[in-house]
Amino acid sequence: MYDIAILGTGPAGISAAITSKIRNKSILFIGSRKLSDKINKAHQIQNYPGIPDITGVELAEKLLEHLECMNISINEERAVAVYAMGNYFGIQTDKDMYEAHAVILATGILHGKAISGEKEFLGRGVSYCATCDASLYKNKTVAVIGYQPEYEAEADFLAEIAEKVYYFPMYHADIRVSEKVIVRKEAVIEIVGDNKVTGLKTTGKSYETDGVFVLRDSIAPDRLVPGVTTDRNHILVNMQMETNIPGCFACGDITGKPYQYIKAAGQGNVAALSAVNYLDKINRHDKEKEM
Amino acid sequence: MYDIAILGTGPAGISAAITSKIRNKSILFIGSRKLSDKINKAHQIQNYPGIPDITGVELAEKLLEHLECMNISINEERAVAVYAMGNYFGIQTDKDMYEAHAVILATGILHGKAISGEKEFLGRGVSYCATCDASLYKNKTVAVIGYQPEYEAEADFLAEIAEKVYYFPMYHADIRVSEKVIVRKEAVIEIVGDNKVTGLKTTGKSYETDGVFVLRDSIAPDRLVPGVTTDRNHILVNMQMETNIPGCFACGDITGKPYQYIKAAGQGNVAALSAVNYLDKINRHDKEKEM
Repeated sequence: MYDIAILGTGPAGISAAITSKIRNKSILFIGSRKLSDKINKAHQIQNYPGIPDITGVELAEKLLEHLECMNISINEERAVAVYAMGNYFGIQTDKDMYEAHAVILATGILHGKAISGEKEFLGRGVSYCATCDASLYKNKTVAVIGYQPEYEAEADFLAEIAEKVYYFPMYHADIRVSEKVIVRKEAVIEIVGDNKVTGLKTTGKSYETDGVFVLRDSIAPDRLVPGVTTDRNHILVNMQMETNIPGCFACGDITGKPYQYIKAAGQGNVAALSAVNYLDKINRHDKEKEM
Repeated sequence: MYDIAILGTGPAGISAAITSKIRNKSILFIGSRKLSDKINKAHQIQNYPGIPDITGVELAEKLLEHLECMNISINEERAVAVYAMGNYFGIQTDKDMYEAHAVILATGILHGKAISGEKEFLGRGVSYCATCDASLYKNKTVAVIGYQPEYEAEADFLAEIAEKVYYFPMYHADIRVSEKVIVRKEAVIEIVGDNKVTGLKTTGKSYETDGVFVLRDSIAPDRLVPGVTTDRNHILVNMQMETNIPGCFACGDITGKPYQYIKAAGQGNVAALSAVNYLDKINRHDKEKEM
């Protein structure tokens, strides 16, 4: 059981991890070691006070150095669901299941819309995690909608278990999947079904399928954390970065505009200190009950 | 008339100034070139992401370098009052009077309590600015309560105009004032009066005086900006750093805990972008009226 799980390795998550570590908390820090896609694509950042005129890649390097200085390591996994269990949280990743007393959400903003039917059929045929749900599709047909080349490996894995696997790449690149995977370069328009998923529609064609795996880097916050209050793609927080769920905090782009590095770093710091206060409070409460 | 006046040169004000400048706004940036007292006294700062393990003095140097890179200069003055005039703001300093369309308050947190009577008699014998109000005390008696040695010069200036000047230093140091100034090393307990100030009480003594100048680095926010909504020493803001007064924003320690450099820098960025949005809105409104 960790003190604080921090999801997302952009400036918000990194700032939260640094301050949590300074406050002597055990942290689970989940995300990509490449940090965020956005920071790596930034040509010039002029308004991160103290580091004038830097590229996104250079800022990312400085942030990684800071993590190294403090012996903070990144668990390179993808969080697919966070469950509030009352006095702790369950964190499901594409590789494992973890527990933590508090959670800080710093997964950034989801660009692009959900696929029609994605939200409605989540848990009823739509899945965000091959590792978690592959076993449900033994001898069945599944479709994999992959938003980055790294998800080709998940299609291959599914092909070891499922009878038939369709792969719909949502990017332009050479597709390298096993022979068993049927590649379809068509835009997916809708996931259809009744009680459960029965198929999907693309531009011009229809496919029968028992399940649809939607694999992208970030998951809309209300699907990642069932029960969290959102306003469209943003999680609602107060000045202390508290969400509506006790022990669950959010920071960075996921909390709304402006989408700025220094704002994200500032909010990460506040979220961490609020999580520390929360842990102190529940510890005091537990001690009082013991007495 | 400036676009944005930024009061305070700590990390919040500096961040606001940098982002305002990037957005091509004309800025009036008021505060000390030594930045804040607090930053210069910080031994070690570990949680400013991207700049691991730095002293306060080193961080202050990096922030000043960033300002230089961007040709941002500091007006080394002390803001004593901000007046909301409807569609612009009047900013009174100890040296001059300025105007701006929007104001960002980043003056930090006031440590220590107000003197009993200070708030009640503000504008009725209590003043925060020798330059502004000296002329009211020609041939009269005034008391100067100085919180830093730099205010000894203001006592000297008042002695050129007033009949009698008492100086109460609130610090331990050699006092260097002109012969005309009467130094009293006594703790001031209360400013007394009826409709107007008539005197003050120290530990053991009472003095008759027509006016009391209270000179310290920061002024409580509700006295600095009449009409702004506060909660004790903090200005209330929303997530966009808006105060209750349209066009008036706040950031950094003045908005509440935690008192952290990276949080202050993040909020300064948000305040600047909110001020830019506000200016765009009033410009559009003005253009619509012209049509």
